[in-house]
Amino acid sequence: MTYCIAISVNAGIVFCSDSRTNAGIDQISTYSKMFSFNAEPDRQFVLLSAGNLATSQSTLTQLRQDIRNNAPVNMNSVSTIGEAADYIGQVYLEKLEKHGGSYTEFESSFLLGGQIKGSQHRVVKIYSAGNHITSSADTPYLQIGESKYGTPILDRIIKLDTPLETAALCALVSMDSTMRSNLAVGPPVEILLYKADEFVLSNYNRFNEDSEYLRELKKSWDQKLKEAFNLLPPLAWAANWENVPENNKGAV
Amino acid sequence: MTYCIAISVNAGIVFCSDSRTNAGIDQISTYSKMFSFNAEPDRQFVLLSAGNLATSQSTLTQLRQDIRNNAPVNMNSVSTIGEAADYIGQVYLEKLEKHGGSYTEFESSFLLGGQIKGSQHRVVKIYSAGNHITSSADTPYLQIGESKYGTPILDRIIKLDTPLETAALCALVSMDSTMRSNLAVGPPVEILLYKADEFVLSNYNRFNEDSEYLRELKKSWDQKLKEAFNLLPPLAWAANWENVPENNKGAV
Repeated sequence: MTYCIAISVNAGIVFCSDSRTNAGIDQISTYSKMFSFNAEPDRQFVLLSAGNLATSQSTLTQLRQDIRNNAPVNMNSVSTIGEAADYIGQVYLEKLEKHGGSYTEFESSFLLGGQIKGSQHRVVKIYSAGNHITSSADTPYLQIGESKYGTPILDRIIKLDTPLETAALCALVSMDSTMRSNLAVGPPVEILLYKADEFVLSNYNRFNEDSEYLRELKKSWDQKLKEAFNLLPPLAWAANWENVPENNKGAV
Repeated sequence: MTYCIAISVNAGIVFCSDSRTNAGIDQISTYSKMFSFNAEPDRQFVLLSAGNLATSQSTLTQLRQDIRNNAPVNMNSVSTIGEAADYIGQVYLEKLEKHGGSYTEFESSFLLGGQIKGSQHRVVKIYSAGNHITSSADTPYLQIGESKYGTPILDRIIKLDTPLETAALCALVSMDSTMRSNLAVGPPVEILLYKADEFVLSNYNRFNEDSEYLRELKKSWDQKLKEAFNLLPPLAWAANWENVPENNKGAV
């Protein structure tokens, strides 16, 4: 399993990914799922991957070969993020066809984020079918892998005007909730910022299992959540099971 | 879709269920998913249901007919919760076979909780295959339906010695997070307490869409979560993407 998040706010993009891969519960490895490219100065891309590791690795290798070989279509020749996503989807489908055909166990999915000069930064999700969707004002974040556990906090915090550092913290909290509930998502946790219109990747962190910050964040969030919970208005019991319709009680 | 929770703590059991059913996104209805039985004074059961409505309704009808007809095996004749779960599983499989056979769209699943005099109260989850698992000291709560969004808060709060009222509040918060993230889970929200060794069902509430308490809880939790989030230790950027291995960056 995997959990990756890409959040596109006005200030830029946050990328966050776990590093656990497993082929069965008894075959667990650690692989980074966060990649950049030898991009021309007018563009910057980050790719996060989920699903079958052989398929995603061969896709990535091909993308890089295409850059090196200056192929007619490559990450440096495309003129929009959407075009890049189409191209990645096509390369991925070729790799999938070669090894897996229609077996879902060979499928992968991707998050691509970045910016090309002259257009806005944004994030797209490339599905295992090779097609893609984009982030938007109403949907500023996209996820791949085990996405449900970590969704509620993102839904509450992330808005278009959320500062980049706040969005990054929220991604880490979302990752923490997911790691807590699904053993197949695990550290190291990588987090990377892309600041809008800068065309470089700088702020990055990789939190290992024994990371003091991650442990502190985990403990602090757990404690503050419990404190918040304890401040909720107490339940009022206005009704009684006696008043419930008979068809719920089996008397009819 | 559906979301039901049953939490078994030392003090008793909390049952919580939503009331939205849908057959496709354009066919949405409201049905209670919480049921009790005309039980003998030495026992009390509550059943929560998810999945195909025709299958779960026909199962429930049969369980009640068996009580009325004093069938050799019925909810008043079984001597343990496990036996009750076996019996329900069998009745369910007969209904499934009759109408749906092996089509998964006809499957249902159930949470059964309660107590029979002389043994501990507990909760079991009856899978769509008809088999079941029980709650335990390590796993005090069980869920059916859309369970992932609401899991993190349960994992953090629920312990065996959690007071019944606190567990009930936690179930509502878990329900709130789920309703926020999945449109197919919706009000009215029903919540019911069973106090250990009392063999009656009393404390009950049904929160409609316009329930002031539910709206207050939702608002309060949203606000307190954001406050808690804002108190987290800020991210430290110890590293830089420059230091990341070359194979992540495509230079090799």
